Amino acid sequence: MSGGPLEGVRVVDLTTVVVGPITTRTLADQGAEVIKVEAPGGDILRYLAAGSRSPAMSGKFINFNRNKRSIVLDIKQPAGIAALKALIATADVFVSNVRPAALTRAGLDYASLAPGNPRLIHCGIVAFGTDGRYANRPAYDPIIQSLSGVAGTFDRAIGEPRFVPMVMTDHITGLVSAQSIGFALYRREKTGHGESIEVPMFETMASFVTSEHLGAATFDPPEGPTGDARLLSPDYRPLPTLDGYITVRPNDNRQAFAFFEAIGRPELKSDPRYATPSSRTQHAADYFSVQVEALAQKNTAEWLEIFAKADVPAGPYNTLDDLLDDPHLNDVGFWNFDEHPTEGRIRRTRTPVTFRGGMREEVLPAPRLGAQTAEILAEAGYTADEIATMLQSGAAA
Amino acid sequence: MSGGPLEGVRVVDLTTVVVGPITTRTLADQGAEVIKVEAPGGDILRYLAAGSRSPAMSGKFINFNRNKRSIVLDIKQPAGIAALKALIATADVFVSNVRPAALTRAGLDYASLAPGNPRLIHCGIVAFGTDGRYANRPAYDPIIQSLSGVAGTFDRAIGEPRFVPMVMTDHITGLVSAQSIGFALYRREKTGHGESIEVPMFETMASFVTSEHLGAATFDPPEGPTGDARLLSPDYRPLPTLDGYITVRPNDNRQAFAFFEAIGRPELKSDPRYATPSSRTQHAADYFSVQVEALAQKNTAEWLEIFAKADVPAGPYNTLDDLLDDPHLNDVGFWNFDEHPTEGRIRRTRTPVTFRGGMREEVLPAPRLGAQTAEILAEAGYTADEIATMLQSGAAA
Repeated sequence: MSGGPLEGVRVVDLTTVVVGPITTRTLADQGAEVIKVEAPGGDILRYLAAGSRSPAMSGKFINFNRNKRSIVLDIKQPAGIAALKALIATADVFVSNVRPAALTRAGLDYASLAPGNPRLIHCGIVAFGTDGRYANRPAYDPIIQSLSGVAGTFDRAIGEPRFVPMVMTDHITGLVSAQSIGFALYRREKTGHGESIEVPMFETMASFVTSEHLGAATFDPPEGPTGDARLLSPDYRPLPTLDGYITVRPNDNRQAFAFFEAIGRPELKSDPRYATPSSRTQHAADYFSVQVEALAQKNTAEWLEIFAKADVPAGPYNTLDDLLDDPHLNDVGFWNFDEHPTEGRIRRTRTPVTFRGGMREEVLPAPRLGAQTAEILAEAGYTADEIATMLQSGAAA
Repeated sequence: MSGGPLEGVRVVDLTTVVVGPITTRTLADQGAEVIKVEAPGGDILRYLAAGSRSPAMSGKFINFNRNKRSIVLDIKQPAGIAALKALIATADVFVSNVRPAALTRAGLDYASLAPGNPRLIHCGIVAFGTDGRYANRPAYDPIIQSLSGVAGTFDRAIGEPRFVPMVMTDHITGLVSAQSIGFALYRREKTGHGESIEVPMFETMASFVTSEHLGAATFDPPEGPTGDARLLSPDYRPLPTLDGYITVRPNDNRQAFAFFEAIGRPELKSDPRYATPSSRTQHAADYFSVQVEALAQKNTAEWLEIFAKADVPAGPYNTLDDLLDDPHLNDVGFWNFDEHPTEGRIRRTRTPVTFRGGMREEVLPAPRLGAQTAEILAEAGYTADEIATMLQSGAAA
């Protein structure tokens, strides 16, 4: 019994890298039981990062795979695929990020699985929706960043397309997949029926980007260019102070006027360029210039004190390393330290969302490759002899 | 009857700008009924973008507020707050992004509302968790980007902190809020009880960033520096070809070796730097250099054909404008055109996720400020006279 909102939900997870693992980590963190099914070599994320203490246990893998158990099955062998299907027959949710054509060949598509488990929620995370011409093309995160306009926002802001230095489209699509599974679980309680969900990365991210940047092209014919000019300004960044950086965001009139007072430019309160949110949007470049010039005159700490008194939204800038010691994160118990059974002491983030109705209590360490193979097969009704045979043939490992 | 997975779920939405509106748009797109409660001036997002056809109806507002109805209430007046509480008493979900201290002062915190509606799911989206020292500080998206390490990833990649040119932390936190509400709705079906959820932007984004970039600091003491060096490489970007850009991502051994063949460098297959995923990770800078040099030699279209044949993951680069004509997006019906009752013909994105168990069918246009005030009050049991009195006093508008 986990105590989280998804307590009792059993998930079979045939995913790798980030998009699927963050989907199922989210479900696991909120109380679901997740069985991570790995091919004999294991999830490639086990290897795709520096600084591990032992092989196949990268920090990144550990972060994305806590609260799961691992079983290794070779689904190219009949006994391996049969075991996977036996697991799915007992599951509430099956998640994969396998290309649809391959999934169907293996008999793991919804139509093949639903007869044996009509309450199954089948979530297929795909790079591209199956109804379009890119369906079944392989893709990783940067390809989706390149196609979906994420890189395009940098082209407009700084003159060259760049990626966000995170596996951002995987990560967001994974959060949307977990969201969609939650909605389907809710509906299943109402109807008694499972269903299949398709979550395409490209469409998900194109929706993300264009919700923000259709801009005047929301209208047909367009009333002006695509893009939200404020966000695409070259000065949309933490701005330099005398000793570092600061971010200030005076948005509504009260905040904007308090900001002008705070920087000693009260005359700007009557400047028509800054009179309303729309006029400040229209004159975003000028508004940023005022900020750039003013903020360079004092230290970050001085400014933060001034803006706090004036109730102007402002905050410091944290490097990646600063996060490890951020005082607010420390207050809320964001960082936890666990003793991993094989990897030693590790740093773990808290689940950020608080459910007052109860949270997952026990923390499972990220599994070593196939750590629970025998245990999971036994739970599925395999005898010790059958398990031994599978281990010997390599159908399980 | 909407037909979506959240059909029948009634949401009262006291949110503004992006983080709350994307939460409730997500719920609405999936079938929930959403009542957007606005202060007399309206959601500031109505004004924060260029290119509108009429005041208070920016493209960005329209994109984030489809499928909702709008009621204007002045909750500083007793009749206004009473009407809001009457609506919440009939709701499944109440979402706000008001600072917690102000929410409690207005009697809109969970403890005040739950006695009148024990099945209520109360979702408070906050900038900072209430248990930490930044609680109740005001913040907008860039402040969270600045604090949470998003800007810090650019510092490491290109030498200066920058923001992602999107309201990214609002947008992601909103998706997580909708996800959390789905999980709570599922649990409510099991237990019969509502609950309160707190979704803090800073913690949510710190978790997002550090899941990817704790790196060798996942271990305590750290086995090396924070950060995933591959993603932080200056060459982690769409790479120039003879006539544009391309993104290629040969990740596993088969893909990497096929890539070396495709660029005419088969000798690299036996180079120990590129022999395994971990060695390629370790020599990421060299691996990127090989890509930079090779890709500059041919046109994008030639490369795409070559990589498609070799089954090497690759894709073109789309500008924001290219997205409006992307052939795959056209295939999947991503772009729809609606006749908005007051704004004319507008472009609308399809909900990217497909639920085979049924999707929301009707599309409601993004509402003009207070467009459904009288209708919603009438549904809540207010008489025509009572409504007229409220409109006259300004408690409603």
